[in-house]
Amino acid sequence: MKPKQISGEAPLGVVVPLEDARDPSESLKPMLDLVAEDMGGINRIILDKAISDVDLIPELAHHLIDSGGKRLRPMLTIAAAKLVGFTGTSHIRVAAAVEFMHTATLLHDDVVDESNTRRGKRAARMIWGNQASVLVGDFLLGQAFRMLVEVGSLPVLRILSNAAAVIAEGEVMQLAAAKNTSTTEDAYLAIIDAKTAALFSGAAESGAAIANRPTEELDALRSYGKNLGISFQLIDDALDYSGDAARLGKSIGDDFREGKITLPVILSYRRGSDKERAFWNRTIAAGDIQDGDLETAIQLMKKHKAIESTLERARTYGAIARDALGVFPASPERDAMREVITFCVNRTH
Amino acid sequence: MKPKQISGEAPLGVVVPLEDARDPSESLKPMLDLVAEDMGGINRIILDKAISDVDLIPELAHHLIDSGGKRLRPMLTIAAAKLVGFTGTSHIRVAAAVEFMHTATLLHDDVVDESNTRRGKRAARMIWGNQASVLVGDFLLGQAFRMLVEVGSLPVLRILSNAAAVIAEGEVMQLAAAKNTSTTEDAYLAIIDAKTAALFSGAAESGAAIANRPTEELDALRSYGKNLGISFQLIDDALDYSGDAARLGKSIGDDFREGKITLPVILSYRRGSDKERAFWNRTIAAGDIQDGDLETAIQLMKKHKAIESTLERARTYGAIARDALGVFPASPERDAMREVITFCVNRTH
Repeated sequence: MKPKQISGEAPLGVVVPLEDARDPSESLKPMLDLVAEDMGGINRIILDKAISDVDLIPELAHHLIDSGGKRLRPMLTIAAAKLVGFTGTSHIRVAAAVEFMHTATLLHDDVVDESNTRRGKRAARMIWGNQASVLVGDFLLGQAFRMLVEVGSLPVLRILSNAAAVIAEGEVMQLAAAKNTSTTEDAYLAIIDAKTAALFSGAAESGAAIANRPTEELDALRSYGKNLGISFQLIDDALDYSGDAARLGKSIGDDFREGKITLPVILSYRRGSDKERAFWNRTIAAGDIQDGDLETAIQLMKKHKAIESTLERARTYGAIARDALGVFPASPERDAMREVITFCVNRTH
Repeated sequence: MKPKQISGEAPLGVVVPLEDARDPSESLKPMLDLVAEDMGGINRIILDKAISDVDLIPELAHHLIDSGGKRLRPMLTIAAAKLVGFTGTSHIRVAAAVEFMHTATLLHDDVVDESNTRRGKRAARMIWGNQASVLVGDFLLGQAFRMLVEVGSLPVLRILSNAAAVIAEGEVMQLAAAKNTSTTEDAYLAIIDAKTAALFSGAAESGAAIANRPTEELDALRSYGKNLGISFQLIDDALDYSGDAARLGKSIGDDFREGKITLPVILSYRRGSDKERAFWNRTIAAGDIQDGDLETAIQLMKKHKAIESTLERARTYGAIARDALGVFPASPERDAMREVITFCVNRTH
């Protein structure tokens, strides 16, 4: 099925008022300021390590690397290292490796999901093919481990090799649950805990592990990253049915058209009538999507407050992430890391 | 294009007399005896680490793991560790990780090559799909690094993370050269040096690295593995046009039908007339394969002695591998590792 443009003038999607009246990007600013200098170093390493004699590798890698992702995950590594007072420089290489791991995942994800676009550009697989996307993803993952080995911290290697396996496990779980409308909320949370939250968690924990900080601090940062990651993914899920998706280069309803099971669907299905469940089974499970079905899906979500509940859940995980940082004394770093939660929860794209 | 059965009673393929009149599997026996006990440990670890709550992972992984590969690469790690007198047990975990890396590569290869069979069974992607093959490959690679981090040897991590990146780089090189009949022998050697020889080399070197042996020994084992790997791949290439391929579960001509550039094709193209080059361009480059084309391809290889030359090259790399072990004093371990070269060069499937 090809994505369709939705006709009509009425605003599409569930409109939910923001908790915080400020522009959400203001909440990202303290973090951006905190990590600005180190992010320059990360960018240099990324450019350097995406080099290969095989032209296809830098071409394809740059397509994605240059496409303006927020680089939230490496920011978490940098911020965590600063939070615990790390004074070395190796956190920058760890953060660059985290971004490579993320980029590898995106390349493979787009192949698995058969996505046509990524960050508002054509997905790499649409330009260079699925084969190149699989192999360049493998290369970037290999490079990430090479960089981590160069840094030489076994605790960091343990955290991030663990994350790599768990992410893949989560992706397989998602594939196995695909189009299964009876997926439970618990099963879904286990999926996003693995496929999304594991790298947020590993990114944050690594920042303290590189500084050889005590277990209590590692645990706190792991919990922060994990809950922020779950919150981040739930907001993503909600935005696909409600957000200012055009600004993200996505159109509303991508998940719907791909038959993806996300929390808004799970809740609508659980709270729905038999007739409504038949609708979800036809569209999401059987993939038979007609004109007007996306509007119906959004209507059902409104009726059952599925988006509101998804956002509520996201705010709860955000609150857990916030509290996780409570073991650290107040500092500008801690504030910045907490503000990022606000950004993630309130973002509109 | 679907594989076709070749009709006719005449023996297909180039028949090349063996250098060594013995059954090639006899040359594998000293190695099998040497590693037998440790291979039991490897098998237990492999079974244990392919476990996941996500059913699809062990199902798919076992399909490949149980399908009776020779496990040549982990054998090299074990043998190298024994050669240098390592008395610990961690080489077994390193060897299991090597096999996981290899299995991950096979899963991704079959997706990239669109192969239908692997080791005489249906390829995993034909049963569980390309998506699951990509993701379970990622999981196995993640598990491999996890296992290596558990072992905790940074030199081994350096060697094998390097191998992971180089293998992927080689696969991308191969993809970029696909169907390009003007690929040079040098370019082709660079491809197989990366995609095949890097893991043989990393497997052998790791066996000594885990024992913290001096650089001279690491270099020797790296060279042994690299040249053995190149030799192994060249023999594979030759067997696809000449071997007892049915015993490997392959049919003669798989590479031809997939339009793969291998050394027999490169040599036939270089040595051929304009008319012959037009044949290779139509079949390999343009993928227009008719009945009788495989027979013609084999005929041209016979005419230009392309298989003989490929085998000759393979024997040369085998000889380099043999000499590389010269820095080690004579021992049953060294003999077994040298006999493996004989096995690889003389095998008929």
